[in-house]
Amino acid sequence: MTGLSSEDISHQRDAQLQFKREAAQAAVKYIEDGMAVGLGSGTTASVMIDALAVRVKNENLRIRAIPTSEASGEQARRLGITLSDFVQDPILDIAIDGADEVHRETLTLIKGRGGALLREKIVASAARKFIVIVDDRKIVDSLGSRMPLPIEVIPWGWERIQTLLISKIGARTAHPRTEKDGRIYQTDNHNFILDCVFDPITDAASLARDIAAITGVVDHGLFIDMASEVLVAGQNGVASLRR
Amino acid sequence: MTGLSSEDISHQRDAQLQFKREAAQAAVKYIEDGMAVGLGSGTTASVMIDALAVRVKNENLRIRAIPTSEASGEQARRLGITLSDFVQDPILDIAIDGADEVHRETLTLIKGRGGALLREKIVASAARKFIVIVDDRKIVDSLGSRMPLPIEVIPWGWERIQTLLISKIGARTAHPRTEKDGRIYQTDNHNFILDCVFDPITDAASLARDIAAITGVVDHGLFIDMASEVLVAGQNGVASLRR
Repeated sequence: MTGLSSEDISHQRDAQLQFKREAAQAAVKYIEDGMAVGLGSGTTASVMIDALAVRVKNENLRIRAIPTSEASGEQARRLGITLSDFVQDPILDIAIDGADEVHRETLTLIKGRGGALLREKIVASAARKFIVIVDDRKIVDSLGSRMPLPIEVIPWGWERIQTLLISKIGARTAHPRTEKDGRIYQTDNHNFILDCVFDPITDAASLARDIAAITGVVDHGLFIDMASEVLVAGQNGVASLRR
Repeated sequence: MTGLSSEDISHQRDAQLQFKREAAQAAVKYIEDGMAVGLGSGTTASVMIDALAVRVKNENLRIRAIPTSEASGEQARRLGITLSDFVQDPILDIAIDGADEVHRETLTLIKGRGGALLREKIVASAARKFIVIVDDRKIVDSLGSRMPLPIEVIPWGWERIQTLLISKIGARTAHPRTEKDGRIYQTDNHNFILDCVFDPITDAASLARDIAAITGVVDHGLFIDMASEVLVAGQNGVASLRR
């Protein structure tokens, strides 16, 4: 952001929001009457839920949605979207969510800046089609360039897990995410998140296996072979990336 | 137990307790002054903590212990054993715990009937030496013959995880463990346990990998390549199994 005036930043923010709206509009077009839909979390997903609610209302769509966070569930309910669960809908027709990074070549994602990665991954893996919506700043040639990899761990013994992530897995740092008041942040599942800085990630599958093998790790922000399609909004409109 | 009178059962119980005491005595002999020690959970570990406390008191041992459950921590504290944590002791010299099944050939364990499998595994994996104490009924030629495999999962979306354990991993059943009043049991880490019945487990490492790869699985009761030594107490005294 160096060299940008506050007006520039405000313009840029408006532009990013507009990009998100365009990608969200494109994504919700996939949704049809009668579908079971997974709803992501975060600012992009929130824009998508707004767009979906408009379609549900205008076209009188009967859909059922499983949200990935309390916030998304609350927003959907308020906008008149019927909520469901895995007893009623063990398989979802589609799930739509944002991402923090998308690897251009493989469409592997990093997610979890919002803290809901575990529910997001459960919902995405339960969906026949998983659509990711991002603005073009999120597309990277090397994973881990924009943000640390979030790793969800159980609170008990987290210092031991932190030690292993650094000594065995090669994280440079593995700081617990904190609230503004300095307390350690807890996920919806009562776990901690260690934000791990790695050298650029070249073999995501191997890294994911090694991380998952550590006892006390609940999950991590790498979404491998999950995205069916990534809708990327930028100055020239919405582009589609597929594997 | 068919055909046994209540007196026979009572005798058998006394014998098993005596076996546990003998194995526990043998195990705590490994503990030396100044060591950091992991304390298991369950009835066998409880007998071991008693035996350890006698040594600590009689020989004035200065040891620090990390317990794997609230109950074990409470017992140790009451008996005058100093408690520690992973900040003070990131590596333990030794950990001692029971097991629900021990595979005779590989020493792979099934643990978790007591619900503390995750902390038990973290502590065992942090120890240079992991000693397992059992009575001889726990030694099996085929894992999964005596009890289901406990799998710890996050509560949110557990029905989806149950479905995957049955359809993808091949569990015959995957019932959530319940309290006496019928509510679902929650672990110290606020998770659920699905007690999974499999056909006899022939390739534990492969099964463990497949289970760990399911999103929402926190951990499972298979302890592979972890036991340094298994002390088995039976009618002919205490035998030692090593890999």
